[in-house]
Amino acid sequence: MKHVVCDKQSNNTNIRLTLPVVCFVWQIAMIILFGVFIRYDEESDTHWVETKAHDNITSDIENDFYFRYPSFQDVHVMIFVGFGFLMTFLKRYSFGAVGFNFLIASFGLQWALLMQGWFHSLDPQTGKIFIGVESLINADFCVAGCLIAYGAVLGKVSPVQLLVMTLFGVTLFAVEEYIILNLLHARDAGGSMVIHTFGGYYGLAISRVLYRPNLHQSKRMQGSVYHSDTFAMIGTLFLWMFWPSFNSAITDHGDGQHRAVINTYLCLASTVLTTVAISSLSQKTGKLDMVHIQNSTLAGGVALGTAAEFMISPYGALIVGFFCGIISTMGYIFISKTLKIQDTCGIHNLHAMPGVIGGIVGAITAAAASESVYGKQGLINTFDFTGDFKDRTVLTQGGYQAAGMCVSIVFGVVGGAIVGSILKLPIWGDPADENCFDDEVYWELPDEEEEHQESIPPILEYNNHMIHKQQDL
Amino acid sequence: MKHVVCDKQSNNTNIRLTLPVVCFVWQIAMIILFGVFIRYDEESDTHWVETKAHDNITSDIENDFYFRYPSFQDVHVMIFVGFGFLMTFLKRYSFGAVGFNFLIASFGLQWALLMQGWFHSLDPQTGKIFIGVESLINADFCVAGCLIAYGAVLGKVSPVQLLVMTLFGVTLFAVEEYIILNLLHARDAGGSMVIHTFGGYYGLAISRVLYRPNLHQSKRMQGSVYHSDTFAMIGTLFLWMFWPSFNSAITDHGDGQHRAVINTYLCLASTVLTTVAISSLSQKTGKLDMVHIQNSTLAGGVALGTAAEFMISPYGALIVGFFCGIISTMGYIFISKTLKIQDTCGIHNLHAMPGVIGGIVGAITAAAASESVYGKQGLINTFDFTGDFKDRTVLTQGGYQAAGMCVSIVFGVVGGAIVGSILKLPIWGDPADENCFDDEVYWELPDEEEEHQESIPPILEYNNHMIHKQQDL
Amino acid sequence: MKHVVCDKQSNNTNIRLTLPVVCFVWQIAMIILFGVFIRYDEESDTHWVETKAHDNITSDIENDFYFRYPSFQDVHVMIFVGFGFLMTFLKRYSFGAVGFNFLIASFGLQWALLMQGWFHSLDPQTGKIFIGVESLINADFCVAGCLIAYGAVLGKVSPVQLLVMTLFGVTLFAVEEYIILNLLHARDAGGSMVIHTFGGYYGLAISRVLYRPNLHQSKRMQGSVYHSDTFAMIGTLFLWMFWPSFNSAITDHGDGQHRAVINTYLCLASTVLTTVAISSLSQKTGKLDMVHIQNSTLAGGVALGTAAEFMISPYGALIVGFFCGIISTMGYIFISKTLKIQDTCGIHNLHAMPGVIGGIVGAITAAAASESVYGKQGLINTFDFTGDFKDRTVLTQGGYQAAGMCVSIVFGVVGGAIVGSILKLPIWGDPADENCFDDEVYWELPDEEEEHQESIPPILEYNNHMIHKQQDL
Repeated sequence: MKHVVCDKQSNNTNIRLTLPVVCFVWQIAMIILFGVFIRYDEESDTHWVETKAHDNITSDIENDFYFRYPSFQDVHVMIFVGFGFLMTFLKRYSFGAVGFNFLIASFGLQWALLMQGWFHSLDPQTGKIFIGVESLINADFCVAGCLIAYGAVLGKVSPVQLLVMTLFGVTLFAVEEYIILNLLHARDAGGSMVIHTFGGYYGLAISRVLYRPNLHQSKRMQGSVYHSDTFAMIGTLFLWMFWPSFNSAITDHGDGQHRAVINTYLCLASTVLTTVAISSLSQKTGKLDMVHIQNSTLAGGVALGTAAEFMISPYGALIVGFFCGIISTMGYIFISKTLKIQDTCGIHNLHAMPGVIGGIVGAITAAAASESVYGKQGLINTFDFTGDFKDRTVLTQGGYQAAGMCVSIVFGVVGGAIVGSILKLPIWGDPADENCFDDEVYWELPDEEEEHQESIPPILEYNNHMIHKQQDL
Repeated sequence: MKHVVCDKQSNNTNIRLTLPVVCFVWQIAMIILFGVFIRYDEESDTHWVETKAHDNITSDIENDFYFRYPSFQDVHVMIFVGFGFLMTFLKRYSFGAVGFNFLIASFGLQWALLMQGWFHSLDPQTGKIFIGVESLINADFCVAGCLIAYGAVLGKVSPVQLLVMTLFGVTLFAVEEYIILNLLHARDAGGSMVIHTFGGYYGLAISRVLYRPNLHQSKRMQGSVYHSDTFAMIGTLFLWMFWPSFNSAITDHGDGQHRAVINTYLCLASTVLTTVAISSLSQKTGKLDMVHIQNSTLAGGVALGTAAEFMISPYGALIVGFFCGIISTMGYIFISKTLKIQDTCGIHNLHAMPGVIGGIVGAITAAAASESVYGKQGLINTFDFTGDFKDRTVLTQGGYQAAGMCVSIVFGVVGGAIVGSILKLPIWGDPADENCFDDEVYWELPDEEEEHQESIPPILEYNNHMIHKQQDL
Repeated sequence: MKHVVCDKQSNNTNIRLTLPVVCFVWQIAMIILFGVFIRYDEESDTHWVETKAHDNITSDIENDFYFRYPSFQDVHVMIFVGFGFLMTFLKRYSFGAVGFNFLIASFGLQWALLMQGWFHSLDPQTGKIFIGVESLINADFCVAGCLIAYGAVLGKVSPVQLLVMTLFGVTLFAVEEYIILNLLHARDAGGSMVIHTFGGYYGLAISRVLYRPNLHQSKRMQGSVYHSDTFAMIGTLFLWMFWPSFNSAITDHGDGQHRAVINTYLCLASTVLTTVAISSLSQKTGKLDMVHIQNSTLAGGVALGTAAEFMISPYGALIVGFFCGIISTMGYIFISKTLKIQDTCGIHNLHAMPGVIGGIVGAITAAAASESVYGKQGLINTFDFTGDFKDRTVLTQGGYQAAGMCVSIVFGVVGGAIVGSILKLPIWGDPADENCFDDEVYWELPDEEEEHQESIPPILEYNNHMIHKQQDL
């Protein structure tokens, strides 16, 4: 009996005190900090009419809003529907997948606006952070790193642990992002390094520290059912379709956004074909495995996160996708079984490894950039060789790109190890080994059909479990 | 036996005559009225090339289409996928939720174009209504009011009743909107008052009039199953993600749209945290309730409908979201059980109450507006203090905002009571009490596995009910 | 036992060799051909900064990217989520529906970029194809034709056959498109003829050639279940909502896109009402049939593909939708049962027939165009009466439109017959008659609950079939 199983557990999963307290304290802190620091930027303030006159801007369409809002909404869908539904593949953890994803993204994006603001856009004169649509995109990006990490521990942690993980994750993210983008002046518009490599290793390190030797006790829950796999495809497809928006959302206006879209579009198409090929090869009769289709098809988008805005050329994008589909799928086939990490969603194969590839591709492409291909001004624009960096050569840039990648790995691994240790404290309400991957622990589930309760033979319980829930009407 | 239950009912749910007749007559009427009244506006007409030359517009990108189309499509998704899937939570009413939502939205938007056209944009010289992308957004908005009302009566009415409800709903909407926006000159870009308060009370009044004392007879159908709750989250998330587009879709070009997006984005994030907190507090062991997550997380968007375009400031938006999450969730916990309204989706807690809060927030924010914050021209632009209203003060504006809210409540309650009485006539084919919340009544459902029919023990029927349906191949 | 059934089949469905080989060879070929031919166009190249200066373009917002990207993303969603989920209605073919749709679209869009490039935009000087966002839209459009064809053979072919079908389908598409749009100079922005008529007849001809007299052996799989019908509604709604973007994605900047959206929006709303009316009329007690709601509601979008950009006027759009809803639904009721085509998704009623209607509507509307309605310049812009075609009259244009429709039918039928014959070769790994419509053949499905295996009475198997699948954690 499901309910009996719950009673057997030794862990205290009662989060009635901790979860509300964390949410309330945190939200009130956000309100105060926003009150002190956050203001509308000049394009979202009613004084825009004066800015326009002052800067001789002839039309409202020049407002950054119109350059970035469609991409922002696509990114927003990826964060909430894409990541959320991708993780619904488990047979009884859909509520946790979508619901906790929703919670920690909403929690994290507020903190991200502050952290990224302090590091990137604190106005020295007023001491304020001025936000616009690009800030919202960056906050969503920052949250993506934490959602990736969630994939590694899906089903094994409590929502309170997730909030703690997100709090530290966003903090670490903002610091490594500052080091990589500002200090090293590396380019990483789609976040191969900053988002995927960091998020991947952050999650893997946490999952390693939280390693559960007896996780096999919840083996019966560690799988999908037909409909849960179909739900997961909603996540996969929205991630896949909108990835061009992800990689182009904060690139340069004009050709920068345009090119990033083309490259990502092509790269992802190529990834699908090699993923299918390897998946089919891995089975005796050539059958396809949903795990590969749901995940590895996305690896190309991850790996083009750095280079999407570069002149990698269309066939270059196809080549990156080609190899990413192969490597990621082989990761699911071979590596997941050997690593002692209990990486629920296989983020090693979808984010960490392709993220590293993306960093390398970015470094090589940057080092190989030339004025003949980019044009003089094009080269300056693409790599932002202005101000302090106006004399930097492409070769040096390549070196800094590589350095950036190392920074993201170090931040992920070390940060994750530390945060993992914090999460090991026995105060967070995480589930017992035999109750992992079960929504029962943290969710009121629909009740069983009561009228039939007594007469149900044991085998029927599972089916009936999902039938009935009273709602106030 | 499901089919036997159907035969037991006394009500005549045969809508083979009424439904087609209403659809055909109505659609033909629409064609005739569109032929007489509706034309393309100057930005969607082939004469745009001349308009451009005449008005010295240098680029096609100045066409309003490019300012509003991305927002329009987001709103469109909210109307059809958002509202439709949000209501799929019931175990056996997904077809009715998505399908009837689809029907009445398609029906209502045509009538909305006419009604809103007559009231807002009838050209006195030509007697024509000129439509463009903003008209489509407004039609979708108008329909939203009726879909909200549908939430209150979900599962208890026939599609013919829904069409009648929508016909009157759109009509009432256009009138109250005219009074609030044009006569009172209140601002309400995201429709806290015009859409949510009106739609909420309209639906609640109808549901009250149609009160069924014996609704407990269909108690077995009044709940969710695991997968239906997951489907409902698709609706929730698309509403939540695109709500910034909803509140900014018809605000001023430039900073107006930009600011409305930022405010709504922040407000909704804040709502999620307090919803989770209260939901967890409401259960003995801190478990979360899907009903709250599906609904109350959206209350912040509703409550910022009026003030989204104002300079409410980022922390102000967070505060609104903070309280709305609390109030809406407590509504689900306490109020739904006590009100004698049989409000299926809890629209009181998601739309009516947050809508009223939104009206109050709008009135206060308007009254507190100052030239120092908005700038001289910014104040004029935001509150449209031009023409007849050029001498209005912000305090007066606050008063008119409050008056607008009262108008929307009155229209909702009185209109709903009258329409409810009409719907009580025994000619509309509504289901018997014991057949409510059951798709069986109005939909051809997939057949059962015939080969196994005889040997199935009663308990299995339910599971098998959803297995089999013949399709012509 | 499901597995036993699989063993009984005589066909060899092992695709472990063919599928990977086709994918790899094809993808490598694509990389080489892209390397030789495909380059960024001037708006997505870093030299855009020079182009801007040269052409006196004052703002990046003039980049075609900002005119078309939101529409592109909507079209992209239609291709992958829309078509994919629309086909999930079968009880046990959701993986194949979404997964193979994903595969062949990714495969086809690369080939489409090349084929369409060679025919439409090969630069004679450099021998290169320059691509931008409009090329991506056209590639997605081209793929749509093949996905329509997939609908006819859904569940009856192997993924290798689908790839072959797509390879030839894209090739034929590019040729007929070249003849219709360039040689005949017909207008077809939303592809009533080029996409829907061609794709529909192509699929029907293939399905006819592959006719299986014993398909009734898989009758148990030829139906939907409750949740699979709900999944299919996701596809329907995303197609329906984004169809205005589909029909306007490549129309003229400014009024062209604006008008195409308005027309399609109205036409589709009208279609919903008449679809519901006829569906209700077709059943004894007026119940609705999900098959009609899922499909026929979209027929209006198909039928307005050619005329959407014309001045068909709002009531004209409603009239087209009115009749399409009726005709398409009657197609499902009457025609599907009589034609010996085994058209799984009924593409005859959703694409082929409405496509032909669309061609006729386009021809008539073009022939009836007048300078008084369009304006002198408007007429020239809309029908592109420039260059070689500057002296063409609207009547002549109407004739060429009609000729274009015939070309698309001929290409579909003849091409489909030939490709069908190729697919009849016994080397492609297609399923036996008794295994059609079953994901078991090409997918690793979630395992059954092993612990209960022995004790399950036969009837329970089906339910348990979808319960359990091991995943590496």
